[in-house]
Amino acid sequence: MNFNLQLDALRSAYRDGQITPRQLLLSLRDKAAALNPDYHLFIHLLSVEELEPYLAALDGRDLNSLPLYGVPFAIKDNIDLAGIPTTAACPAFAYVPERSATIVEQLLALGAIPLGKTNLDQFATGLNGSRSPYGACPNSVLPEYPSGGSSAGSSLAVALGVASFSLGTDTAGSGRVPAALNNLVGLKATKGLISTGGVVPACRTLDCVTTFTATAREASQLLALTARLDPRDAYSRSNPLWNDGSAFGAPRPFRFGVPRAKDLEFFGCPEGPLLFGDAIDQLKAMGGEAVELDLSPFLEAAQLLYEGPWVAERYSVAGELMEQNPQAVLPVIRAVLAKAPAVTGVQTFRAQYRLQTLKALCDQALEGLDCVLTPTIGRPVTLAELAAEPVLRNSELGYYTNFMNLLDYAAVAVPSGFMGNGLPWGVTLFGRAFTDQYLLSVADGLQRQQGLASLAPTTVARHDYARLVVCGAHLEGLALNWQLKQRGARLVESTLSSPDYQLYALAGGPPFRPGMVRVKDGGVAIAVEVWELPSSELGSFLTGIPAPLGLGKVQLADGRWESGFICEAYGLEGAVDISHLGGWRAYLTDRR
Amino acid sequence: MNFNLQLDALRSAYRDGQITPRQLLLSLRDKAAALNPDYHLFIHLLSVEELEPYLAALDGRDLNSLPLYGVPFAIKDNIDLAGIPTTAACPAFAYVPERSATIVEQLLALGAIPLGKTNLDQFATGLNGSRSPYGACPNSVLPEYPSGGSSAGSSLAVALGVASFSLGTDTAGSGRVPAALNNLVGLKATKGLISTGGVVPACRTLDCVTTFTATAREASQLLALTARLDPRDAYSRSNPLWNDGSAFGAPRPFRFGVPRAKDLEFFGCPEGPLLFGDAIDQLKAMGGEAVELDLSPFLEAAQLLYEGPWVAERYSVAGELMEQNPQAVLPVIRAVLAKAPAVTGVQTFRAQYRLQTLKALCDQALEGLDCVLTPTIGRPVTLAELAAEPVLRNSELGYYTNFMNLLDYAAVAVPSGFMGNGLPWGVTLFGRAFTDQYLLSVADGLQRQQGLASLAPTTVARHDYARLVVCGAHLEGLALNWQLKQRGARLVESTLSSPDYQLYALAGGPPFRPGMVRVKDGGVAIAVEVWELPSSELGSFLTGIPAPLGLGKVQLADGRWESGFICEAYGLEGAVDISHLGGWRAYLTDRR
Repeated sequence: MNFNLQLDALRSAYRDGQITPRQLLLSLRDKAAALNPDYHLFIHLLSVEELEPYLAALDGRDLNSLPLYGVPFAIKDNIDLAGIPTTAACPAFAYVPERSATIVEQLLALGAIPLGKTNLDQFATGLNGSRSPYGACPNSVLPEYPSGGSSAGSSLAVALGVASFSLGTDTAGSGRVPAALNNLVGLKATKGLISTGGVVPACRTLDCVTTFTATAREASQLLALTARLDPRDAYSRSNPLWNDGSAFGAPRPFRFGVPRAKDLEFFGCPEGPLLFGDAIDQLKAMGGEAVELDLSPFLEAAQLLYEGPWVAERYSVAGELMEQNPQAVLPVIRAVLAKAPAVTGVQTFRAQYRLQTLKALCDQALEGLDCVLTPTIGRPVTLAELAAEPVLRNSELGYYTNFMNLLDYAAVAVPSGFMGNGLPWGVTLFGRAFTDQYLLSVADGLQRQQGLASLAPTTVARHDYARLVVCGAHLEGLALNWQLKQRGARLVESTLSSPDYQLYALAGGPPFRPGMVRVKDGGVAIAVEVWELPSSELGSFLTGIPAPLGLGKVQLADGRWESGFICEAYGLEGAVDISHLGGWRAYLTDRR
Repeated sequence: MNFNLQLDALRSAYRDGQITPRQLLLSLRDKAAALNPDYHLFIHLLSVEELEPYLAALDGRDLNSLPLYGVPFAIKDNIDLAGIPTTAACPAFAYVPERSATIVEQLLALGAIPLGKTNLDQFATGLNGSRSPYGACPNSVLPEYPSGGSSAGSSLAVALGVASFSLGTDTAGSGRVPAALNNLVGLKATKGLISTGGVVPACRTLDCVTTFTATAREASQLLALTARLDPRDAYSRSNPLWNDGSAFGAPRPFRFGVPRAKDLEFFGCPEGPLLFGDAIDQLKAMGGEAVELDLSPFLEAAQLLYEGPWVAERYSVAGELMEQNPQAVLPVIRAVLAKAPAVTGVQTFRAQYRLQTLKALCDQALEGLDCVLTPTIGRPVTLAELAAEPVLRNSELGYYTNFMNLLDYAAVAVPSGFMGNGLPWGVTLFGRAFTDQYLLSVADGLQRQQGLASLAPTTVARHDYARLVVCGAHLEGLALNWQLKQRGARLVESTLSSPDYQLYALAGGPPFRPGMVRVKDGGVAIAVEVWELPSSELGSFLTGIPAPLGLGKVQLADGRWESGFICEAYGLEGAVDISHLGGWRAYLTDRR
């Protein structure tokens, strides 16, 4: 039985009665058990008995009442599932949690079914997937390469078709590197959006729970379903922007940063520059404009992660065990943590100051950009290369991922092609905190470019921005345009309204203002501009608009309705009908 | 010559030609020089020659072109003024900066004139004003009490009438404790709003530049003039809310937190509870509702400041000097810093986790409150008491102030009365980050209650919130009301529109919606509700409103215009005039 496990496809299959959750989960359990001796993807695969309560909970439930009805998922084994040991890939560290992690509780309540706990680089410290006493995880396509890590088994669970999605964690790239190596979308959402309550910390100030999915669209759905403030996680945050993914769709014209040539690093891989160039072209084909970006402050921030005091965060989790029982911890992890006890408080604060300085520089570099495109990894390394130089090769894998969590950015790893040997290759889109759904919409666009025909039709939206149709003094260059620019607004298009409007020069002024009035008969098309501004700015903008004007919905020439200026009827007293001029600019010229 | 140095009064005096900046500054310089042997308020009073360039820069300038034309101000001596030594009250630490601090540069560019550098507790470590080799600063009213610190001399400069305002700094209360003791307003704005570029750090992650003024209104003006993002300060932030103070005014009905009895601490001072009770009554008289607050997580956060790793931040500034030349640092400061070298990175991160947990609890406690009222200090201590037990008495002074910067709250210390012996007594209003201008508006209301007749008339506004007049499905309890509540909106009043409206039941639905239309003749008053929601939420709310409705300006029964629902005329096709019912609720009842 080989089902399409993507969320929408699976839902249809359930709806059509092609399969039941019980049938599917038992079949996937068998498949996982068969794969495990070679791939070591599960540390604990749920037994039939352990699965049963989750399946039973769906009996008699309506598919329509549960957004993730019967969706199989896998859980990285540093995230608690009640009653099943959490090992963090260190048997001596294992404990049996009474309560599931918050994210797991959320998913279970939505109807998803856990298949098991997946293998990882011990204590989530590593990017390759070979640092586990439960076995190294080979790549899902080419077994002489690693799966990538630390969320190794979770990436394999989706790539090998035993789960619709899986949970990983990401402190330095652990949710993105395995995505790139296994042709998956890895979403490292903005820190705090998904609760880390019930997750074994790596660096608690940096850790994120991530998802692996086949598509950006699924990642968007999961994020919209699970991003919640959690009292159990003091680092949890809510999204201050209007960005809930409810109108997910393809992106419009946008500017994306691309690292300048001297900062691009492929570690001698000749295919890298070509593959990355392809991805740039794909974004351009979507209407993107590439802008060169100096990556050096980002890369300097990355250096802080392993060379700076943050290693003390890892030590604060595993240090005590390591002191008492050094053999319980893998030698490579011991080596990473060895520096930690000597780190002082003064060094810690100084490194935090330095990071803050770098973040200010990086934020500045992102101004005017919608997102940044980088490779996800510079060069895949083989398992043999990793074994020969475990620390160097591992750190190469993190070149484009290590800085993200330190700098508080959101990132999506998305497949963008294949190497000559068939190994998947991917890129990362990243941007400011809380731009997650926007990044996912660009990633979705990339996947559509690549012809993933199964994707649903798009709507057009950028979720933390609002569009505004203006027709008068707010037009580019006119008297009140600064009110838009001051709020970070950007001109998106100059177009016409639908042919249903009259334009009036209102009495009073300066500033002189038009009123655009929708009519049943006798309307014409009026020249308008569509501006885009942060949704959060619209409130103060509205407050400043005097009667009889206001903001409502205006129809454009192509039939779309967008928010824009409207005018109350009583305000037309003393006004002059200037509709025949077709727009406010023409009227101003006419008046001169 | 005894001038009213408050900003508006001084500006009038200049405008009327009663005095010139040169005359005033030279006179104030003489006054300061005469006070200094007793009060030790200036470490460096500018000489006539040093003053001259600042005065010359005003020659020929128009008063109207400079918001702070000729305004005398004093600068705490841990804030750089170009060409004048910065000592931080430690002669061995002194250096002569080439460039002024950003805040000083801003003030100079606005026309303000620096009078000198003021005395402080060494390295801004202290809350009393007696820890300086340049002499202890006595209280401006009762010299057997201290001025309070660490911004000791800056508070005296305003209290003793030699400057219109002064700059302090605040890490644990240094900008608020001296305000309380000298009958001043001390504004510790949200961290990062005022640049700390060019300021000697105490704890760099916590430091704020503060102002001392006679009135909250002046503090508001200064904040609005100087809150800017500064590339020189990586910790600088811009205010994401619509909160620039441009329409400053008195507060409306609000809920304020008051510490529960067991958390109130007056250290045996019998007058404290009575004075604090008076302040509570003053806020109630302004329309405030007092709500009991558990202060324990706030107080626990305060413990972290001196008992936790943050002392390593102070050490990172003064530690090297202390190692090389222990005698250069006052014994009491050496004692504070002594613990710092032993602080480890692991301890530092663990304390940061604990702080984050406490902050989540405190944020939760603030939900539903507009602000919190506390005493600024529990009990004033005499200089003799301080000398006898310098650390204990100092830490008592910080009981209500130490937690503020750690928790990222904004705070305003404002005078609220006098003790029997004539010593000023004050309270602190604090709230979430970026509520500064709101807090100042409440402080302004308090000062008006106290009969400061010189204050200008008020306008009504709450700057990070927008009001919205609703008349239909968004009314309390009706079908779409959740769209408001979901955005944190609050019902402010149920009232009527001005008698200029008609109400129509629009065609279509559900949800059924009315259109409220302003008319020239034949209008009636319609029942409406005024809701208040974060301005940043208004954008997404607007986006969800379908044509023919929109948001514009609606006039209320008392003549005010507020943002609210309007309706385009074309949308009345097929609608039924229900004006005679006077409101949507009446219509719904009628229909049943």
